[in-house]
Amino acid sequence: MEELTSVHNQHVKNWKKLQTKKYRKQSGEYLLDGWHLVNEALKAGNQINQLIGTEDQLAAHPDLQEQAGATYVVTEEIMKHITDTVTPQGIAAVVDLPDAHRVPEKITGAWLFLDRVQDPGNVGTMVRTADAAGFTGVVVSNRSADIFGPKVVRSMQGSQFHLQLLEGDLKKWIADFKKVGAPVYGTQLNPAAKNFRTVKPGSTFDLIMGNEGQGMDQRLLAQTTANLYIPMRGEAESLNVAVSAGILMFQLNQQLG
Amino acid sequence: MEELTSVHNQHVKNWKKLQTKKYRKQSGEYLLDGWHLVNEALKAGNQINQLIGTEDQLAAHPDLQEQAGATYVVTEEIMKHITDTVTPQGIAAVVDLPDAHRVPEKITGAWLFLDRVQDPGNVGTMVRTADAAGFTGVVVSNRSADIFGPKVVRSMQGSQFHLQLLEGDLKKWIADFKKVGAPVYGTQLNPAAKNFRTVKPGSTFDLIMGNEGQGMDQRLLAQTTANLYIPMRGEAESLNVAVSAGILMFQLNQQLG
Repeated sequence: MEELTSVHNQHVKNWKKLQTKKYRKQSGEYLLDGWHLVNEALKAGNQINQLIGTEDQLAAHPDLQEQAGATYVVTEEIMKHITDTVTPQGIAAVVDLPDAHRVPEKITGAWLFLDRVQDPGNVGTMVRTADAAGFTGVVVSNRSADIFGPKVVRSMQGSQFHLQLLEGDLKKWIADFKKVGAPVYGTQLNPAAKNFRTVKPGSTFDLIMGNEGQGMDQRLLAQTTANLYIPMRGEAESLNVAVSAGILMFQLNQQLG
Repeated sequence: MEELTSVHNQHVKNWKKLQTKKYRKQSGEYLLDGWHLVNEALKAGNQINQLIGTEDQLAAHPDLQEQAGATYVVTEEIMKHITDTVTPQGIAAVVDLPDAHRVPEKITGAWLFLDRVQDPGNVGTMVRTADAAGFTGVVVSNRSADIFGPKVVRSMQGSQFHLQLLEGDLKKWIADFKKVGAPVYGTQLNPAAKNFRTVKPGSTFDLIMGNEGQGMDQRLLAQTTANLYIPMRGEAESLNVAVSAGILMFQLNQQLG
């Protein structure tokens, strides 16, 4: 157990650098901030490479250190520095980035694809909602917010441990779904598209949500089985993308109901 | 048309102070930031007390000044200062706070009540979603985020001009709904509550969403017609409150479908 008091310490600098996509890729790790995420990682059988905590928090949970590769006692100032949280809980963990490019052996279950969704909070909230709606996986296109960035991780609230969270080329993924006869539903802010309430898919299907401002890529829209819209009152122009995704996911995946 | 260049100018100080609830109440006004909101206010027939714009933006829309009580040309620095936006569009308007304490003569339509919802983005997103779902009104309890604060106004995207947005004592509002025989649905993170998919209200009803961490007040839960829950996969613990509200509002108010 090492005690660190300076933000200039090399470990602290590296943890801070985990906020950047570049360093996450380079180190193959990302940071979990707070008790909920650390516990979710352990429940899911993840190895904790480095456990970082304030003296109080570590003392309150002595058993946790046995499950970590290394433990570091840090000041509250360091905790704030590495987590970018105003009032951090005083516990964090560095874990391995999962392999987000593996492809499932068999296409089955409900899947959500995200096409260039920019806001980290939206990406994280949609992953969390997909988890709650019983979805099997989420595939995020490469020009979306990075799925292991701090804000996405905070919004996911541990849902990355409950479903398959992948990055990939949506064109290929759509083709794979269609090859096995699974419907692929795009979404469009267009009353001429298909009313979402009229669709009753089986247990294997895919739903695609698009960019906050521009919606889905035209080329992807042309590739789908059908494109859905949510009827709205005339004066309202759109819904938040994460709210739309929630409405659609709970409508399409009714096995839970 | 007055030209202002200093953030120390008294007008600029007052506009900045409109970010606080205290000064909004005192002046009876709030600030709309950006073209979309200014246009929505005008479309809804609102009087613009003060129009604030950069030289470029005002020059591009000369007709707008005729509709404003007074017009001020300001620098981009002032615009950033008063809007707290990183890249403001260069147009803003001061309008009257509507009377948020009036009570409708007759209770009719779908209504959303917010019980101590803290996050301004959540409050604003729920008002926007209620609008899109064809709701008649939203009543916000007094310990929620202030409905005319800058972040709520940004998230509402002008929906305050399309529905009735009120503040009030939810206990009294629930009693009024029950008096006319309209169902009042609470929400609860409790699988023993009523599955939301089994409820088919008529055109007049009320839905209540609670605080992000604690949910709805126990006393309000005891007052409702029924309390609803959204079935979730075991490992997921909850949904974001604005996502839940979207799922419930579009399920309960299907006249739009």
